[in-house]
Parts: sequence; structure tokens; C-alpha cells
Amino acid sequence: MSKEIGITIKKNNNISDWYTQVVIKSELADYARAKGFIVLRPYGYAIWEKIKEYIDNRIKETGHQNAYFPTLIPESLLQKEGEHFEGFIPEVYWVTIAGKRQIGERLALRPTSETIAYDSYSKWVRSWRDLPLLLNFWNSVMRAEIKSTKPFIRTSEFLWQEGHTVHSTSEEAEKEVLSILQIYKELIEDNLAIPVLTGLKSDKEKFVGAVYTTTLEGIMPDGLALQMGTSHNLGQNFSKPFAIRFMDKDKQERFAWQTSWGVSWRLIGALIMVHGDDKGLVLPPKIAPIQVVVIPICYKEKDSESIQSKVEDFTKKLKEKGLRIYVDNRDHYTPGWKFHDWELKGVPLRVEIGPRDLEKDEVTFVRRDNFERFTEKYEAAINKTVLVLEDIQSNLLIKSKNLLKENTFTTNSYEEFKERLSAKGGFVKAGWCLEKDCEDKVKEETGADIRVIPFDENTMKTCIYCMREAKKTVYFAKSY
Amino acid sequence: MSKEIGITIKKNNNISDWYTQVVIKSELADYARAKGFIVLRPYGYAIWEKIKEYIDNRIKETGHQNAYFPTLIPESLLQKEGEHFEGFIPEVYWVTIAGKRQIGERLALRPTSETIAYDSYSKWVRSWRDLPLLLNFWNSVMRAEIKSTKPFIRTSEFLWQEGHTVHSTSEEAEKEVLSILQIYKELIEDNLAIPVLTGLKSDKEKFVGAVYTTTLEGIMPDGLALQMGTSHNLGQNFSKPFAIRFMDKDKQERFAWQTSWGVSWRLIGALIMVHGDDKGLVLPPKIAPIQVVVIPICYKEKDSESIQSKVEDFTKKLKEKGLRIYVDNRDHYTPGWKFHDWELKGVPLRVEIGPRDLEKDEVTFVRRDNFERFTEKYEAAINKTVLVLEDIQSNLLIKSKNLLKENTFTTNSYEEFKERLSAKGGFVKAGWCLEKDCEDKVKEETGADIRVIPFDENTMKTCIYCMREAKKTVYFAKSY
Repeated sequence: MSKEIGITIKKNNNISDWYTQVVIKSELADYARAKGFIVLRPYGYAIWEKIKEYIDNRIKETGHQNAYFPTLIPESLLQKEGEHFEGFIPEVYWVTIAGKRQIGERLALRPTSETIAYDSYSKWVRSWRDLPLLLNFWNSVMRAEIKSTKPFIRTSEFLWQEGHTVHSTSEEAEKEVLSILQIYKELIEDNLAIPVLTGLKSDKEKFVGAVYTTTLEGIMPDGLALQMGTSHNLGQNFSKPFAIRFMDKDKQERFAWQTSWGVSWRLIGALIMVHGDDKGLVLPPKIAPIQVVVIPICYKEKDSESIQSKVEDFTKKLKEKGLRIYVDNRDHYTPGWKFHDWELKGVPLRVEIGPRDLEKDEVTFVRRDNFERFTEKYEAAINKTVLVLEDIQSNLLIKSKNLLKENTFTTNSYEEFKERLSAKGGFVKAGWCLEKDCEDKVKEETGADIRVIPFDENTMKTCIYCMREAKKTVYFAKSY
Repeated sequence: MSKEIGITIKKNNNISDWYTQVVIKSELADYARAKGFIVLRPYGYAIWEKIKEYIDNRIKETGHQNAYFPTLIPESLLQKEGEHFEGFIPEVYWVTIAGKRQIGERLALRPTSETIAYDSYSKWVRSWRDLPLLLNFWNSVMRAEIKSTKPFIRTSEFLWQEGHTVHSTSEEAEKEVLSILQIYKELIEDNLAIPVLTGLKSDKEKFVGAVYTTTLEGIMPDGLALQMGTSHNLGQNFSKPFAIRFMDKDKQERFAWQTSWGVSWRLIGALIMVHGDDKGLVLPPKIAPIQVVVIPICYKEKDSESIQSKVEDFTKKLKEKGLRIYVDNRDHYTPGWKFHDWELKGVPLRVEIGPRDLEKDEVTFVRRDNFERFTEKYEAAINKTVLVLEDIQSNLLIKSKNLLKENTFTTNSYEEFKERLSAKGGFVKAGWCLEKDCEDKVKEETGADIRVIPFDENTMKTCIYCMREAKKTVYFAKSY
């Protein structure tokens, strides 16, 4: 593979340029013409489909159903919850013309669907019999980005899912928020092999319109935190302006309790940054569209038939195990070119079958995560493949747990706090008095936000800024 | 079920109002606030998911991959193919404002993705090695409808799939057009149980920008034709303005050959109209989200346990057969209410298990298509269920084939032609000289278009309008 095709920038030297090269050269995505927009190419879409499949199954198992709401939201609807509207207004795209005519009330491209969905919910929910209402939408949302954009991480349109549920009690809504957070955690840790901190957002950082927001926060190799998903308790903040009322079993009419939650294709960005290396993408087997690439190595015509029949037998058996396999039979590329191509694309395991392997009744394996190369007798090779994939999955999680550990620092000295953040970034665990003023000052002086307030951890005695008593122990970080 | 909840209009009396009632009351969809937009509710979405699953599998089997392109298209891109742009301009929604600022070049909400996709394709396609490029997008498109809207049939936003392929030869593109048409035909006839006429559109009716359009046309019970899907040969009409060129094996640079094709949620509208009856929706088993609803009939507490255990055993066995089952255990509704509710929702088969069934070791079946009610010994009931579902599927196709037959008329007399169209509508098969003038005149005088030109049928001798020699035998109809 020529320099031009492979990744030419070291991850450690310039992670931002490295990232862009990986996105483009591994063909996950491409820039679109309009600023801030990207095209999700088939390889990137296939990863998104794996993420989608996982979430879709989990939420359906727990009684949720999918629906589709319009892309366009009349301005009067978007305005119904004031705080929510104020939060989104700087980045809303507006349709003002249809064909050749100016339209009456301008239409917002959904930045999120709370308002348009809850307008319908208020018609559908009448009685306790209609609850809980557990819906999810797979769609895209548009937010005109003012900050600099970055494929997957910050784009003016992104694919995501947004769940919107309605409950008859506050307790049930609280449970929902946490059970979704747990599903997200299992997606991200067990499948994407990325450890996350979970907990609450501060009032300053919560979703506009929520009572509280729970979050999953990861750390990237450059020391910046990345919000990986959120699950909000909306309380009755929307049910009141939208009049989502129900007749309860006791014949009393009550306002409903609501939640909303989402993860987006941003998760693909996290996958790239956390696992990728100087050769390109590294995908965890559970989420990889192709788990094993099989490359027949055949220099002489006479070997061709016996190699191909071995390859066919092998891949048939792998497929029976439910594995996702690709046989690279492209005859216009050399084996060496193919090796680099699949390394760039991050396929977890490469299997080579050549004349020497045939002779010895073996196959050759090369792991993507550590480039380990080894052979296995043919009869044991299928089981070996399964075991090696499991090992790659857990090895990637071990590595990324180390990354999190190395990037987490605890202190109660504001001097150390500032020093650490400017030198290395990462999470800094520290006490907080709960005053917004301290939170604002820290942000102003260091650039770090409170990323997450763990659910039940308070080990620090003093607020990192004012040194008064700490009411919570929190994780600060600079972030994407 | 109260009058208010059930369908209150006879299909034969006023199919248009009946249709709206079925859509709303069966909870397939609801009207959204913005004019012409609908909300796809969970039950409607579940049908769409079945359609999607079928197409997604078929196109992936044949080497296609999914991708996602932005919703917003810069005006300059949309203008690149002049005829195409002219065709869409009356119904394009335009974004002119982002946040509080006027944007420079206005952005179109995609009415279809040819232009934005082919701008990227021109970067991706370099060599014959990159071909064929076989992509598909699951998304929504927006077209400000001027004509009166109708849920699923004509809405300002609709869910669909759009396939966009690039080939190195014209022959390969032609093959693609037909192989997709065949997949659509099998979806519609074998799964939706709706027969279609397939063939070409006339130049007047073809897709703006295509060399030719192939189509699948169904007939609705009110005698109006419905276009169910299209597959276009774009030739080099787009590859030239978009500069999609490739270096061929012979080292010559050539413009590529392209196709595009799509079906939308309009198919759900066809399902409703063709199969529905005065009680509501009737769904073919192959596409029904719920194929069998099981209703325990239990008036006395003492029977409860034995009935529930029978129901559990029965549904477990049905699920093992891969069937989609719902057990209606809602205790706040009577069995009678449930019967009507599931009839309204069109579930193909109802199974009742009550004390009398237990006593006789039977279960009771009620078919949705013909309301036939019968019992079967428990040990034979599982196999019976499978057989009855197959019978319902084929019975619905027989009925809809009759509908097509009754609504197809052949004539070479323009008097008869006009009379038939104004009295009954439907397809009228007639000769055509290929002159646009005759086509226009027929439209003007009768309201009927040429819906489809069958691929190889020319049985009529004279043009229905000018009486000169017929070059093609075609199907005219008024349409949605």
C-alpha cells in the first residue's frame, strides 16, 4: 500500500489529523458539500447497523416500540417549553420557503423531537390504560454547529435514536431513566469495549428542559472527555405545557411523568479514537461488521484450486458459528496490499491460507490488536478463531480501562488540579460544594466542566474551588 | 366496542373517508401539526419494519450496501442536472436560516438524493475496480405537496428506500433495473398479496432525468391506479454533469452508467385499500407484525390458572415455529372488545382459549379474511395454525387478483374507453401510436394517464385516440 493510501500521521503526534485520516481513508465517512455535514459510507453504516441492532433488541425486549415523527416542527410547537426552546434556538435550521412561495409559520428541522412527539402524546394518552407509553425513534437530527465540526463527534446532522416515554408515576420514570442508562452502559462497555463513568450532570450541564440528566462519559487518548449518551428524567416539565394528562385508576386526572434518552453515531467516533492505532481503525469483534477476513495466498496457478477449496470449507464452518466473514478474492491486488487495507479498516482478525499452510495442514492468524502472528492446525482452527476473537474483545477493554485509569487523577488541591488539566487533561476527581459559582469559576480558569456526578460516591472533603465543605465528589474534564 | 371506536363508514359507500378512519382508528398513523405530514405510529412502523426487512435482505444478498447521505442539499448541487431540477423545484422545501442568521447558499431538503449522492460518487469512482457501486439509503424525503394529501399515499414527508448504483456498462445497468423490479414484484405480490402490472413508463411519465422508468402499478378498489414502486435507468444522464468517470480495463476513461430505484411507505396505503373491509384493516400474514392474537377467555376465577397454562404452552409452541404472536391478557377489557380491537387492527388469525375449549381439548380459531370460525383438537392446533395462515395469505392474493381482473378492460373504441373510465375507472388496455399528442389528449379528455407499457405485449392494432397503427399496447388509468 502506498503512503498516500495508508495513514501518514502518528496518533501520538497529532490525534486530530490522524483521526480525520482514519475516518476518510478507512472509508467510514466522507465530507459532504454543505459545511459540517458528512456522508456515512457503507463501512461506517455497517457499524451503525450493529449498534442499532443491539439497542433495538434491548429496548424491544423491555417493551419499547419504534415510531416515526416528522422532520419539520412548526415554530409554535418548538416554543411551548420555554427553557428547551431557548437552549436550541441558536442552532435550529429553519424552512421558510416551499417551492416558490414563502410559507406562513416557519418550520424547524428537528433538533430533537420532544415538542413534536409530546404534541401527539397529549392526544394519545387519556387513561392509565394507555401507560406506560414506551416509544423510540430512529432518525437524524439537525443542529447548525457553530463550534468547529469533526466527523461523528460534532456534525450538523447526525443519526441517532431518541426514546420518549410516558409514565403514570414519578418512580416508574426514574426507573426507566436508569434502566436505559444500564442498556447504554452494556452497549458501550461490553460491545464497544470502552469503559465509562456514569452518574448525573450538574444543573448547568443538564438537558434543557429536564429535571435531571444522567450521562455516560468516556475519556479519549488526548485527555478530552466525550459524552457517550444521556438519559433524562423530564418529570412533568413537558407534560404540563403539552397537557399530557391521564385519568388515573382512582379517577383523578394527573399530569404524566416523562423520560427521554439517546445515543448517536458519535459512538463511532469514540471507537476510532479509543482503539485506533497508527495503522488505522481497530474494531472490537462484537461490533465489527467483518470479524474475520480470510485471504487466500496464491502465487502459482497450480495451488489455486486446493487453496480455494480449503478457504471455502473454512469460511463455511466459521459462518456456521455465526461469525461475520469476508473472503478477499480480489485478484487485482497483492496479498500485501490486502493486509494493509484490512488493517486500515480495523478487521479484528486476519486468516491467511497459502501453499505452506496447506502443506502443514495449518492456517495462519494475525491479530489486529497486537499484530501477533501464529499458526494453528486446521482441525483446531475454527475453535481457535472463536477464542481469539473473545480474547481480542477483552484485550481491547483492558487497554481502554488502562487508558481511563491513566487519565483519572484525584486531588483536593486547586493548584494540582490546574496543573494536571493543563499538562495532561483527563478526568480530575475532586470535591464540589454544589454552588454554580464554583463550577463557573473552574470552567473559566481551566476550561473544565463537571462531566459527571457519580451516583453514590462522596469521598472528598472540600470543594476544589472554594475549599468549603464538599457536598459531592465529581469528575471534571475538558471535553469535546 | 363502541361505535365511536370502530369503523363507522362502509368501504363501498365512501372509500376515502373509510380509509382515513382505518388509518387513524387502527393506530397506523396520525396527522401531525404541519399540513401534509403524518406520524407513523408503532403499529404502522412495525409494518414498515417488515417491508424494510424483506427489501434489506434481498438487496444485501445481491451485493448492495446501505449508506446515509445528508438531508440538506446545497442549491448549486440540486441544479446540476437541469431537467431533474426543473421537475422537483415546485415542491422543494428550502432552509434559509440557521439559528439567527441568514445562510449564504440556501439548502434544499432532499426531495430525492441523486444529486447529493452523485457528487460523492464522482470522488469515489476512479477505476473499473470501484464498480459496480451498489448503494441503498433508508431515509425520508420531503416534497411540499400541492395536491390534496392522503396518509401514506401522498404526504409531504415519507419514509422510503432509494437505491443508487453505478456500473461500467449499459447492459449491466439495464440488468440491475430489472432485477430490482423483480425484487419489488416479489415483495408486493408474494408478501403484500397485491398483484401488479409491470413495464415501462411513457416519456411523459418517466422520472425526471431518467432514460427510462420501469414501474409496478396496482389497482385500488375505487378504480384508481397506484404506482407501487419504480426502478429507473439513468443511463449517463447524471454521470456526465456529475463527472462520474472511471478508467476502464482497456485504459480508456469512460462515463459510468447508473440506476436509481425506490419504494416508500405508500405500500402501506395500498395494503389498507386493497385488503381492508368494513371492520378495518386486513393484513396478509407474511407482512403482519402480529400474525396470531391469542385471547384467553376466562369469566371465572377458578378457570384462570388452567387456561393461562394452556395459553402459555400454545404460544410457546407457535413461537418455536417462528410465528409472531401476541397474547392479549389485558384484564380491563372484555373478550368482545378485544375481538373487535384486533379485527380493526387486521390481525390475520385469532385464537380463543376458554373453559369450553379446555373441556373439549380444543382451541377456537377465527379467520380475519372471511370470519370463518372453527375449532381444532389441541394436538393438531399448531400445525393447523401454520396451514390456516398460508391459506389466508393465498386467499387474499386470489381476492386481489380478482379485483385486478374486474378492474381491467380492453377496448379499441374510444367511446367505450371514455365510458368505462367515467363509469368505473380501472385499467383500460388499449393501443397507442407512441405520439405524446394522443397521450395528452386522452389525459385532457378523460383524466387517464398511460400507467404502464408492458414489456412485450402488443395485441392491439390501432391507437385508441388517433386510430392510426398502434406501436404499443398500454394500460391507461386515472390514478392517485
